[in-house]
Formats: sequence, C-alpha cells, structure tokens
Amino acid sequence: MELNERQEKILTIVKENGPITGEQIAEQLSLTRATLRPDLAILTMSGFLEARPRVGYFYVENAQKRVLNDELKKMTVKEFQSIPVVVKESSSVYDAIVTMFLEDVGTLFVVRENSILTGVLSRKDLLRASMGNQDLSQVPVNVIMTRMPNITMCGQDDALIEVANTLIQKQIDGLPVVKQVSVNGEEVFEVTGRMTKTNITKAFVSLAQENE
Amino acid sequence: MELNERQEKILTIVKENGPITGEQIAEQLSLTRATLRPDLAILTMSGFLEARPRVGYFYVENAQKRVLNDELKKMTVKEFQSIPVVVKESSSVYDAIVTMFLEDVGTLFVVRENSILTGVLSRKDLLRASMGNQDLSQVPVNVIMTRMPNITMCGQDDALIEVANTLIQKQIDGLPVVKQVSVNGEEVFEVTGRMTKTNITKAFVSLAQENE
Repeated sequence: MELNERQEKILTIVKENGPITGEQIAEQLSLTRATLRPDLAILTMSGFLEARPRVGYFYVENAQKRVLNDELKKMTVKEFQSIPVVVKESSSVYDAIVTMFLEDVGTLFVVRENSILTGVLSRKDLLRASMGNQDLSQVPVNVIMTRMPNITMCGQDDALIEVANTLIQKQIDGLPVVKQVSVNGEEVFEVTGRMTKTNITKAFVSLAQENE
Repeated sequence: MELNERQEKILTIVKENGPITGEQIAEQLSLTRATLRPDLAILTMSGFLEARPRVGYFYVENAQKRVLNDELKKMTVKEFQSIPVVVKESSSVYDAIVTMFLEDVGTLFVVRENSILTGVLSRKDLLRASMGNQDLSQVPVNVIMTRMPNITMCGQDDALIEVANTLIQKQIDGLPVVKQVSVNGEEVFEVTGRMTKTNITKAFVSLAQENE
C-alpha cells in the first residue's frame, strides 16, 4: 500500500505523540480536522492507526508486516517438499555415499519395509565415516546413522516457517516428512517426503516470484 | 489490511466483472453510489483496485503481495551473511575436512594472501575426494577445488532474494561474499563473508519473527 505524503506525515506525528486526537494532529499540520478526515479513515482502516474514543489515535506497530505474516502462515510443507531418497538398513556406507551423489541430495533416510523410518544420514555423517580407515563397503549404515527416536521429523501440513525454525534451531540440513501409521499395533512413521534448507530457499524465492 | 464485508463483496464483483463503473457496482449491491464512495476510495488507495476515467474499476492482482515484495527487496546480504571460513591453497584435503568439522560449515573458501579468493570447496567435493584411495594429507586442496573464474560470488549489498535464486538455479550450497580490489593492477576479489542456504533459511524465519 502506497501512502501519500500527508498520510506519512500523520503516521510520523502519531508515532511520536500518540495517543493524540484528530484535532491535535490537524493543528500540527496547520490543516482543518475535516481535511484530514479521509486520510485518518484510510490509515485506520488499513490498520496503520487505531482510534479509541475519547483518547485518540495510536500507532500500530508493523501493520504492513501483518500482511506478510498472513502469507507466510499459508505456506506448508506439502507445497514445497521433495521426494525422499532412502537406503535400507543393511546398505553399506559406500552404497549410501554413491546414492547421495547419484541423487544429488544432502540427507538420506534409512528405512525398513513399507518405508518405515529407522534412521537419517547426513553428508557430514558420511564424510566423518569416510575419514576413518575402514572398508566402507563393509560398514552398514545403521552403525553410523542417527536413529529413532532421536530424529526430528515434520508432517506435510506443518507450516513451512516452523520447519525452517526447527532446521535453524537444531542445526540440521534436512528433515523427513512423515505420516504416523500403526503396524502390528506399533506406532511408527512412514517417510513420505523430504524438507531441506534447499526447499526453504526455494520457498523464499517463490515469495518474490509470485509477485511479478 | 482487514477489509470489511462490503469491501470484500466489491472486490469480488470487480474481479468477476471488471472493468465496471461505480454505478454498476452500486446496482449489483442494491446500494447508492454515494454509499460506496468511501469503500471505493479505500480500495483504490490501498492498491486493490485501479480506477480509469470513463472505463471503470479494475482489479489489481496480488495487491497484498506487493507489500511482501517491498519487504523482501529491502533484505540484503549484509544483514544475513556469516563469517567466511577459509583455508590456504597449500592446505591438504585432510586439513580442509578437519576445518569443515571444527567450524561446522558446508563450504570453505580457498584464499591466497590478503584473503584473495582463489577457490571454493563444498562438502561434496571433500566427500568425493575422500572416497578415492589417496592419502588425503598429501593432496593439496587446489587439486580438487572449484577455481576462479568459475566461482559464483555475491556482494554485500546484493538483494537476498537474488542470492537465494542463484543458489537454487546453480544448485550450490553457499557463495562467497566478496569485494573487488586492485592488487598490483590486477582486479581480484577479497572474501568478506559467506552466504549459504542456512542464511537464507534464517532470513525466512526472521520474516515471521519480526511480526510477533
């Protein structure tokens, strides 16, 4: 929303002097109350100012940013997730590294039958393992993976902004997108997607592209 | 910006029937033109509608998102960059991997004297090197690094959204933030920072946090 010069002046006055009456604002601008009425109406209805009877006008912090917040909350994992890349628990570290290169991903998920999540492998885990003096084709991934229940996960309906926050707070590159299922009475998680900092970066870029 | 019920109705009418005159909108709502005047003024001044003389009102796509775009364009590399982590050209691949773990970064920059950029090392480059049957402490990083002029860089005043787009388009994890300097008549780039998908993810999170 573009404010005109007079509306910007009004905002500045209210920011510095609020609560302030319409009369007082008019006085400061050497204008009549009637002249200001349309501007005050627009500023109030757009959420920049709040008017309280017998008190006056208040400045509302970050009115513009509320619009932004609304847009952000609408973005969910579902829209931005990638296809998961998985390896079996019996796979070797060597095979996992090859898979990571072939699929060009930074995070692999380790699964048992029916895509049930048992572990996660990061590029860092694999690099650490490859530094040792072991024959990587003889080491199974379940020796070096992060395993359940120590895996941070997300669901496809989670807000993207929450997932982004989790990635930052926990300092991880990617999360499995999962669906809770019951297998023989046991509650487990089926891997359905992958959310990484790359997906978040794409979402960030999309914020701008939607506007062009 | 919160629209009232009548304003939402007007938007719907203009979306479906625009260009449409104020008279025609009033007719559809069974109201007088005078009653609608304040609503039309607010919708026009807020950018939701555009009025053209003798034609009528048009709906403006994504008026709300323009606010978002304005916010995005204000975000620059400077505000969100990290400190660069560098190694010397003569460092071994082994030392580079150790540095990557100690500093917990995904991208290292290779520099000569005065922090002049000569190469970039990604986690992937190091993982690839460590898969070979070489003694990593005997291989210098300049054998495996991506070298100038094939390095994508950014400046501290670049818009974050442009950098995010570059990271996605070129499928890279991080960029050096550089400053062009002249050394003995040669135009070179001094490394001053580091921009990664982690920084972009933090910027994305900050969009929401500023609003709380």
